[in-house]
Amino acid sequence: MANLVHRKQLMIEWGHCDPAGIVFNSRFFEYFDWCAWEMFEAALGVPRSELFVTYDIMGIPLVDARALFHVPVRFGDVVDATSEIVEFRRSSFDLTHRLSIGSEVVVEGRETRVWATRDKDDRIRAKAIPANVIARFRNA
Amino acid sequence: MANLVHRKQLMIEWGHCDPAGIVFNSRFFEYFDWCAWEMFEAALGVPRSELFVTYDIMGIPLVDARALFHVPVRFGDVVDATSEIVEFRRSSFDLTHRLSIGSEVVVEGRETRVWATRDKDDRIRAKAIPANVIARFRNA
Amino acid sequence: MANLVHRKQLMIEWGHCDPAGIVFNSRFFEYFDWCAWEMFEAALGVPRSELFVTYDIMGIPLVDARALFHVPVRFGDVVDATSEIVEFRRSSFDLTHRLSIGSEVVVEGRETRVWATRDKDDRIRAKAIPANVIARFRNA
Amino acid sequence: MANLVHRKQLMIEWGHCDPAGIVFNSRFFEYFDWCAWEMFEAALGVPRSELFVTYDIMGIPLVDARALFHVPVRFGDVVDATSEIVEFRRSSFDLTHRLSIGSEVVVEGRETRVWATRDKDDRIRAKAIPANVIARFRNA
Repeated sequence: MANLVHRKQLMIEWGHCDPAGIVFNSRFFEYFDWCAWEMFEAALGVPRSELFVTYDIMGIPLVDARALFHVPVRFGDVVDATSEIVEFRRSSFDLTHRLSIGSEVVVEGRETRVWATRDKDDRIRAKAIPANVIARFRNA
Repeated sequence: MANLVHRKQLMIEWGHCDPAGIVFNSRFFEYFDWCAWEMFEAALGVPRSELFVTYDIMGIPLVDARALFHVPVRFGDVVDATSEIVEFRRSSFDLTHRLSIGSEVVVEGRETRVWATRDKDDRIRAKAIPANVIARFRNA
Repeated sequence: MANLVHRKQLMIEWGHCDPAGIVFNSRFFEYFDWCAWEMFEAALGVPRSELFVTYDIMGIPLVDARALFHVPVRFGDVVDATSEIVEFRRSSFDLTHRLSIGSEVVVEGRETRVWATRDKDDRIRAKAIPANVIARFRNA
Repeated sequence: MANLVHRKQLMIEWGHCDPAGIVFNSRFFEYFDWCAWEMFEAALGVPRSELFVTYDIMGIPLVDARALFHVPVRFGDVVDATSEIVEFRRSSFDLTHRLSIGSEVVVEGRETRVWATRDKDDRIRAKAIPANVIARFRNA
């Protein structure tokens, strides 16, 4: 079985770029988040706003985020992002995001997120990821 | 002749919303900017990154921006934006952006932008908008 | 009685500026929000995170926001912001934000915000602004 | 000789937080950037907007950025950031940013940045970091 790979096209907007004319680094972490939610929505077949109730989660908060910037990305560039979950653990998982322009990989991202709910004291707590969620991120 | 109306669909992302669960106001001004560039690209038939050289401009900077927030917009909402240039003056122009969810108008925006270049001292200066640019924003 | 005027100094950061080397317009609306919360905290003598419980509000959401951009603002500029509430109505109020570099006014902002709570159906609803809140925004 | 440690206090703003009520991850990378520029300005004794001309650089672009999120950070939290350059190489350097609330470390960041200029073809190119720059980041 292979990982499900989610594809999304991104337009680099004016307000995403800095005075050097290239994307300001924090914006890539926004793009990764856009990709992650869209991937969940597509894989699970549940609108993103209903994921919370459907799975009794408060979100998929990050505990680790990293990006490697290989090539500057500029206003008007059209970027192809491919995202996949490369590892599931009991209550956390690792995603990679690979951003390319044409055949060139320009940025690589890696996130560790937690499948999380809130306890009685309203604190964020990890919970076990259901097997049927994990299964949806694997191609037959 | 009617104004060209540009349509764009927007997905409301997690990072665009605040602790009240609704879009943080500044994000709407980002959306307006996305709509404006896409409209120029489409109307003029020039990729956005080539507009600067094609028309000898440094951008289309804002001198006035306003938004009316009629209805809260939330994570996962799909918003239909319609944008048009409602008035051209010698070197500035007014755009409106109307954001709707289904048949309900949720946010209305209005921007005044300048068709601008840089002078010899690198200062931003308004310049006359070419007649053939204006013509492209009018439907026959 | 005069309006209380709140003063805040802002540093223009790299990631706030666009490829033209000037502050991207949406960032000014972020600055206005920073000023508004700091003004409330200072005027009411309540830490901002406790305003919700203290006054039974869900926030001070915007219904109208506007900015006039008079002079380009650049990376490294130090901006002096003065904010005041220029009008209180039953459940909404108007703020102005005046941003200056030295003696020059560079940006003027105006916001209309609502003193809001949530009803039983979790909808955002305006509520009357307490007289003792209004009094704190007036100098003796 | 020890590394110069730069300290900066950060206020967590409303627009920096997401619907879970905690800082949206990309905002931490904005904070890291604020810290980096302020550290350079302080260490080198040159206003940030003059660093480009003084050192013939186009900026200090990132090639790697990472954050570990240990504890959720919320609206109104006051965060103490300590930043230092932990390694200089010929034309790149590693910074760490440690964010604390009281005595608790809440987020740790690590950036690799390049001391960069533009070549004749306007491409971003690494250049050797001057010894006198490096010396300013070391305490006697």
